[in-house]
Amino acid sequence: MFKKKLQQLISEEHPIGIKFSWLVQLLIFLSVVGFSVETLPNLSAEHHKILHFIEVILVIVFSIEYLTRIIVTDKPLKFIFSFYGIIDLLALLPFFLQFGFGFVSLRALRFLRIFKILKLMRYNKAINHFKAAFLLAKEELILFGMAALILLYFSAVGIYFFEHPAQPEIFSSIFSSLWWSVCTLTTVGYGDIYPITVGGRIFTFLVLIVGLCIISVPAGILASSLSRVKVKSDIEQKRNESKSS
Amino acid sequence: MFKKKLQQLISEEHPIGIKFSWLVQLLIFLSVVGFSVETLPNLSAEHHKILHFIEVILVIVFSIEYLTRIIVTDKPLKFIFSFYGIIDLLALLPFFLQFGFGFVSLRALRFLRIFKILKLMRYNKAINHFKAAFLLAKEELILFGMAALILLYFSAVGIYFFEHPAQPEIFSSIFSSLWWSVCTLTTVGYGDIYPITVGGRIFTFLVLIVGLCIISVPAGILASSLSRVKVKSDIEQKRNESKSS
Amino acid sequence: MFKKKLQQLISEEHPIGIKFSWLVQLLIFLSVVGFSVETLPNLSAEHHKILHFIEVILVIVFSIEYLTRIIVTDKPLKFIFSFYGIIDLLALLPFFLQFGFGFVSLRALRFLRIFKILKLMRYNKAINHFKAAFLLAKEELILFGMAALILLYFSAVGIYFFEHPAQPEIFSSIFSSLWWSVCTLTTVGYGDIYPITVGGRIFTFLVLIVGLCIISVPAGILASSLSRVKVKSDIEQKRNESKSS
Amino acid sequence: MFKKKLQQLISEEHPIGIKFSWLVQLLIFLSVVGFSVETLPNLSAEHHKILHFIEVILVIVFSIEYLTRIIVTDKPLKFIFSFYGIIDLLALLPFFLQFGFGFVSLRALRFLRIFKILKLMRYNKAINHFKAAFLLAKEELILFGMAALILLYFSAVGIYFFEHPAQPEIFSSIFSSLWWSVCTLTTVGYGDIYPITVGGRIFTFLVLIVGLCIISVPAGILASSLSRVKVKSDIEQKRNESKSS
Repeated sequence: MFKKKLQQLISEEHPIGIKFSWLVQLLIFLSVVGFSVETLPNLSAEHHKILHFIEVILVIVFSIEYLTRIIVTDKPLKFIFSFYGIIDLLALLPFFLQFGFGFVSLRALRFLRIFKILKLMRYNKAINHFKAAFLLAKEELILFGMAALILLYFSAVGIYFFEHPAQPEIFSSIFSSLWWSVCTLTTVGYGDIYPITVGGRIFTFLVLIVGLCIISVPAGILASSLSRVKVKSDIEQKRNESKSS
Repeated sequence: MFKKKLQQLISEEHPIGIKFSWLVQLLIFLSVVGFSVETLPNLSAEHHKILHFIEVILVIVFSIEYLTRIIVTDKPLKFIFSFYGIIDLLALLPFFLQFGFGFVSLRALRFLRIFKILKLMRYNKAINHFKAAFLLAKEELILFGMAALILLYFSAVGIYFFEHPAQPEIFSSIFSSLWWSVCTLTTVGYGDIYPITVGGRIFTFLVLIVGLCIISVPAGILASSLSRVKVKSDIEQKRNESKSS
Repeated sequence: MFKKKLQQLISEEHPIGIKFSWLVQLLIFLSVVGFSVETLPNLSAEHHKILHFIEVILVIVFSIEYLTRIIVTDKPLKFIFSFYGIIDLLALLPFFLQFGFGFVSLRALRFLRIFKILKLMRYNKAINHFKAAFLLAKEELILFGMAALILLYFSAVGIYFFEHPAQPEIFSSIFSSLWWSVCTLTTVGYGDIYPITVGGRIFTFLVLIVGLCIISVPAGILASSLSRVKVKSDIEQKRNESKSS
Repeated sequence: MFKKKLQQLISEEHPIGIKFSWLVQLLIFLSVVGFSVETLPNLSAEHHKILHFIEVILVIVFSIEYLTRIIVTDKPLKFIFSFYGIIDLLALLPFFLQFGFGFVSLRALRFLRIFKILKLMRYNKAINHFKAAFLLAKEELILFGMAALILLYFSAVGIYFFEHPAQPEIFSSIFSSLWWSVCTLTTVGYGDIYPITVGGRIFTFLVLIVGLCIISVPAGILASSLSRVKVKSDIEQKRNESKSS
């Protein structure tokens, strides 16, 4: 009887479950805001106390949610080692490990709390569409991704050849040049690293002509794959509706 | 009889109404230019006087237009609280409130005058197409928008983890890092904030690969949705034409 | 008889005409390179002499070409006042006006020589496809162009409101803010002007979300319009081929 | 008998060949990493020794692979002068020329080693799809590429006209302006060169409106061409499958 009530709480179809899921999303949002505010410099001790208090409450709620999910499912182990199970655990771990290690809270560990945000993905149906579209175009995406990587490396070596003699400090190695490749071919262009020689600039021009085409292709493949997935799911939905009516 | 003439003035189908609407658009354009010129530093007092004079005349015309629209429609309240009714009022308000408060013209208030430009939307048929396309793809756009927001936040936390120790002044908090996320994932790249550590740069590269795909998807969805709307409206137009002939 | 030979020279179907058109394109390219080299600082007097000599020869050839085109066509006036006729004249004018005004060569006038490059468009079939695609989507492109302009102005006023108090030197007027709008919404992001206040940055984020969609739509409309034009011309070509066989 | 074994080694269908090809790809990756690490400044002599040792071993393996490919094929000359044959040779040449010239290793020559990375293309099926798509849309791509080049040059001259008087150091010649055109129209926007005059900024705005459409068209053409190639290859694959079953 109690288990059934808990099942309703977590179910995404039952009205109580839907309300609960909205609550969890709200708390995740609150937790994320709290985490962000905590990084602000010049926070007073009092503010830190309030943030810590909110954190404790949120951890309690998320712990209850995690345990409920384990209790409710018929195969607890399967849930624990599932994608969302691991994320739920990773989001809680930093808090409890903090106590385990006394007051020695490891910096890197605290960042694990960010995994809480991935819990939101559970409620995001777009992820499934995206995943299906990705699987449909998997092979091509990998191949074009590889082509993009080859181009990135090739252009890094080329610009190193042209610019290293002129700017030995900035284009200090092929790794610095790779940073230039990433910034340039994605058209971000921060302006911290750019060619100044005539050869380097002509090379940049040629690389950009080829690069813009190759970089934009995976996005195009994904978009067309997504639209195919959408059409499929629309047809399925209509079929189900005509069956049920 | 007089009301009928006014109706013609505002109708978008009657020749007089079309001419009047062109006049209103011209005056809006004039008003916008005047508003922009007013912000120029080092304007002489004489220029300010001329601009104020133009502003007064324009406000009179727009007030007449606003009142005409109220008088003409059968349901004045419905118009007043409609989208365009509110915009018309917001565009006039700053001028009259200025007198209400004596010479105390609030700075922020004056910016309400910019709402005049939204009046142009009344004459822009593209807005309707855009609105229809948006409604058609609403659900997906929201879901992908959410995915983009999650990615933005996730990358902000990641870059904060890598860059805060190296550049505590620039990546001072997760909010600063969020600004970096926005600048980078939209490929604007002003160059005021960028990673300098090896870890941060590799993270930027990975985030950009994923980000460029996710960011470009909503635009793609909207574009394909727009083309579907266009095809629909073309078919309807043809039907209407074949009926009337 | 002589006229017929000239006609062959200019015809784009006759073998002689095709060779001549390649020659003209080569000379235009040469002229463009010469014009560019001339702008290099620290050019010796000798180099200037050589460049001037090349210029004289090219002007003679282009003048002959221009006169030939006038003589050959049945309606000389129609050609003179056609798009390509005016471009041909504009490309020659600077040189001859230079003599007309003695040694007083007006700076701005010399830039008219660049119109030579537009002569290349005569040989570029893509222009016709582009023109047809533009006409097909004309109405939508104008409407979305207007929407983009409204957005540009709206975001300029918004950022002026947020940033002018913080950076009165950089966001000095709405015209400066418009420059920021152009740089940001096209994602160029030079980095000479960017928001530093929290409000300005949040506003930038919101504007970019809406802007990226609106800015990318006209390009998408044009692309799909182009593909429709292509399919049409392919079908027509096939029809012509099946008729002639 | 021995030749047959070698053939299996190089065949991309035989299990041994597939394993060998993975090994070669791994070694190429290793070689690329080694080449990159070598460019790091402040490398100790010992590290240089290790990198040189790895290089020697890799050259030996690649030489064996190259010779094997020559021995195995029925027409050795055809392979040597094929695209991949030349790349294989170019990737090996720098090492052997180094010995030929004694200890005088030419800087530029060492960069030829980067051609090793092009060997990866042999295993990248996406290249074939890309090549087919390129050939399908060849004519249009060239024509639009030309239109893009004309636009680039035209905008370079325009910005030179506006900005040279104001910034004679930065917009020193049309070649500098061309660099600006490339950076701006691809929306990279490093921020090393940008207009400051009102005329130059308005010109930039106009050029960007036209430019963004023209620049994005070739990518769009290529994407739609790629999808057509994909559909074709899918149909062919299905046909082959139905035949074999």
